Amino acid sequence: MADEKQFVKEITPQSEDFSKWYLDVIKKADLMSYSPVRGCIVFKPDSYEIWENIQRELDKRFKETGHRNAYFPLFIPESFFQKEKDHIEGFNPELPWVTEAAGEKLEERLAIRPTSETMFGHMYAEWINSYRDLPLLINQWANVVRWEKRTLPFIRTSEFLWQEGHTAHEDEADARKETMQMLEIYRDFVEDFLAIPVIVGQKTPSERFAGAVDTYSIEAMMKDGKAVQAGTSHYLGTKFAVAFDIKYLDRENTHQFVHTTSWGSSTRLIGALIMVHGDDRGLVIPPKVAPTQVVMIPIGPPKSREPVLAKTNELYTLLKQAGIRVKVDDRADVTPGWKFNEYEMRGIPLRIELGPRDMENGQMVLVSRVSGEKRIIKQENLVQEVEQILAEIQTEMFEKAKQFREDNFTSVDSLDGMKQYLEKKRGFILAGWCGSAACEAEVKEETGATSRNIPFSPAEHKTHCLVCEEPALHTVVFGRSY
Amino acid sequence: MADEKQFVKEITPQSEDFSKWYLDVIKKADLMSYSPVRGCIVFKPDSYEIWENIQRELDKRFKETGHRNAYFPLFIPESFFQKEKDHIEGFNPELPWVTEAAGEKLEERLAIRPTSETMFGHMYAEWINSYRDLPLLINQWANVVRWEKRTLPFIRTSEFLWQEGHTAHEDEADARKETMQMLEIYRDFVEDFLAIPVIVGQKTPSERFAGAVDTYSIEAMMKDGKAVQAGTSHYLGTKFAVAFDIKYLDRENTHQFVHTTSWGSSTRLIGALIMVHGDDRGLVIPPKVAPTQVVMIPIGPPKSREPVLAKTNELYTLLKQAGIRVKVDDRADVTPGWKFNEYEMRGIPLRIELGPRDMENGQMVLVSRVSGEKRIIKQENLVQEVEQILAEIQTEMFEKAKQFREDNFTSVDSLDGMKQYLEKKRGFILAGWCGSAACEAEVKEETGATSRNIPFSPAEHKTHCLVCEEPALHTVVFGRSY
Repeated sequence: MADEKQFVKEITPQSEDFSKWYLDVIKKADLMSYSPVRGCIVFKPDSYEIWENIQRELDKRFKETGHRNAYFPLFIPESFFQKEKDHIEGFNPELPWVTEAAGEKLEERLAIRPTSETMFGHMYAEWINSYRDLPLLINQWANVVRWEKRTLPFIRTSEFLWQEGHTAHEDEADARKETMQMLEIYRDFVEDFLAIPVIVGQKTPSERFAGAVDTYSIEAMMKDGKAVQAGTSHYLGTKFAVAFDIKYLDRENTHQFVHTTSWGSSTRLIGALIMVHGDDRGLVIPPKVAPTQVVMIPIGPPKSREPVLAKTNELYTLLKQAGIRVKVDDRADVTPGWKFNEYEMRGIPLRIELGPRDMENGQMVLVSRVSGEKRIIKQENLVQEVEQILAEIQTEMFEKAKQFREDNFTSVDSLDGMKQYLEKKRGFILAGWCGSAACEAEVKEETGATSRNIPFSPAEHKTHCLVCEEPALHTVVFGRSY
Repeated sequence: MADEKQFVKEITPQSEDFSKWYLDVIKKADLMSYSPVRGCIVFKPDSYEIWENIQRELDKRFKETGHRNAYFPLFIPESFFQKEKDHIEGFNPELPWVTEAAGEKLEERLAIRPTSETMFGHMYAEWINSYRDLPLLINQWANVVRWEKRTLPFIRTSEFLWQEGHTAHEDEADARKETMQMLEIYRDFVEDFLAIPVIVGQKTPSERFAGAVDTYSIEAMMKDGKAVQAGTSHYLGTKFAVAFDIKYLDRENTHQFVHTTSWGSSTRLIGALIMVHGDDRGLVIPPKVAPTQVVMIPIGPPKSREPVLAKTNELYTLLKQAGIRVKVDDRADVTPGWKFNEYEMRGIPLRIELGPRDMENGQMVLVSRVSGEKRIIKQENLVQEVEQILAEIQTEMFEKAKQFREDNFTSVDSLDGMKQYLEKKRGFILAGWCGSAACEAEVKEETGATSRNIPFSPAEHKTHCLVCEEPALHTVVFGRSY
């Protein structure tokens, strides 16, 4: 039997090999295991707990905006995919098929859902009759499968966990309002809760969701300069309504097609979190999403162990009661130094050290995982100080990630300019684009960068297409992406 | 497009046709829809919310006892099933198989998990090395699929949602302690939270989980006298440890096989909830699990509408702040009488009526869904009174279900006695059993009843086998089951 931890003695520095750093970190921090099924991982407790925190927070925001959860079948009949032409073209290459069950060949193949627009479409056609049934606002937490060629733990796995919202509306205006509302919920959640700054914008047609009229995304920059799409929101127009015959009787007693939206975010957020905040010592987890926010480590010689432990437990209870997620590591067979390294590697935002001298002085030492700053505080101010420093760490992490993104963001006027930049540096590139698919494809071919999105608030408005030099229709963010 | 609600004008009385009553109720209360995939249903928001409440409460209890959540792959390679002989025999007839993915035939077929002992087994072999890694206590919330011939919404569906706990221990004693602990958590949860009395006991060998050494269950009686297995906990011995080579180095530096357990409960609890508490007017949901515990309905003539509504909203806020799940239905285009029927059908435990005369007297009317009792209370005592009556309703529902079970529980000495009983009545039957599979099979063939379990605390100890009249090895609860 293999001890996985043995395989990772050291973490490869990010500057040496970012991909290796990533794989080292997630193994050493015990976040996942490769499963025997191609491209599928096991989400071990330490990563699943991050997902639980993400779920809880997103779910709260969905419910506050009037959405309810439901659960739809895993299996989607093949004929459903045929109903929306773009949708099947986009997803067909990635579908696994159930062809036999209970010893018999099925009459119709069943796909494992890669996303559920078709199943929701079929059911919505049954449920929606009148404008009184609208808007219909449903979200689903589920597993989905996309049989990918190249996989990377958390970022792109054959099976992953996500939420998919599917809503139906009376008209375009209402559906577009929903699309934008959910995009804003993602932006706010990812920036506020995960401390990841994102670029909000619209996808170009070539990067649109298969079957969407318009796709919007939030894009985050990893520490290797590559992009991760951290959430998408789609206005689907009446495409799925027409395909599945989702009609309602409007206020004038006329049959109309509904306008639908869908929006999703997934366990790839865990991967983004790691690649945005991690450093050469390991994970760094923002306090708001961290399963453990504070670790308390009693220190000092054996003779003072008893009173120090008693005090530590007393202060632990105070923090716990204040709703802070805190743990004590009082193991005697491991040195404090080993523990410091261990919890730094695991990314616990704040460490508290308490020794005999601290006891005498009624104080304790707080050490931030992000800055390494040590702060000596009075025990009597414990809860208030810890709450404050956790808030500071959260802000600091966001600002640091934002600064990194700004330091790795350039603007170019030509394809040559982009190539030259990408030869030496990494990051996002702002450029003008005429709107033609050919020019976009040329950028990809020449540089490996793809359009991430057309940002709503670009730093500047570019006037000419970087490829053909025609007037720019849009200012686009390009980047290599995961 | 079909309006599902139109199809259910009336609910069939339970006494007329219990199965039809059940299907009428779940349709009319909008809990589910049949999906286009055989045996799969859509869990609509009103049933999914019940599941969310079940999840939250069970999850809390699992975590309090040291378990952590993780997520394992949906797909299980065919070869894994071959490793444990009993396991494959039990599950093979129900497995759906993925044979193609991304346009290619797979080298090895992948089953959709019906349960995950094999996948956990494979991973545990990789993760466990030393006694220091034990016990390993992991739970998973997931969808599973069993391709069943006969399905019934919530109770038996091809795909369902559940939790499955899988633990590994140093020795039999520790694993058996875990098995019993989880059985007790299920009992306590189902009785306390769902107000469903259960019989706790051990399954006979023929009803054991495929691959278990011992299976324990909690069994509930539905209002048609049939049994629903509401939770199971298995001691698996070293069977899966041997099959997957899960060994650890013990304190004496010797390799030992671990002892494992597994335990599960599922969305069938929603079905049990409905069939234990529902009545001819519809659902009755216990306050602790009810998504909406209280509905407030303002009444009276249009001229007093404004002040009554203002008061209702004021009191609503008080209840909300006290953590009570409350809704106001202030629609003007629907009569109070219609609303009363509607919320009774949906099983909301408590209704509050407030009209102009109540305003004058500073009072309001509380109506219990279970007893129909009306109670006039002072507005100033609102929160306290509501909390108290909800607690009373919860207790009343448990006691009522318990009384029903006692009224439909008999004890027999012979197979003829059982037959005669079941010809006229329904329910559970206590009988002695010699321990032979043949006698157990004969009971099933002659009466349609199967052994539910060997209760830990039978009302009496039977001395002779009901079939062969040999001395009884066990006192068994028999019953027809879902």
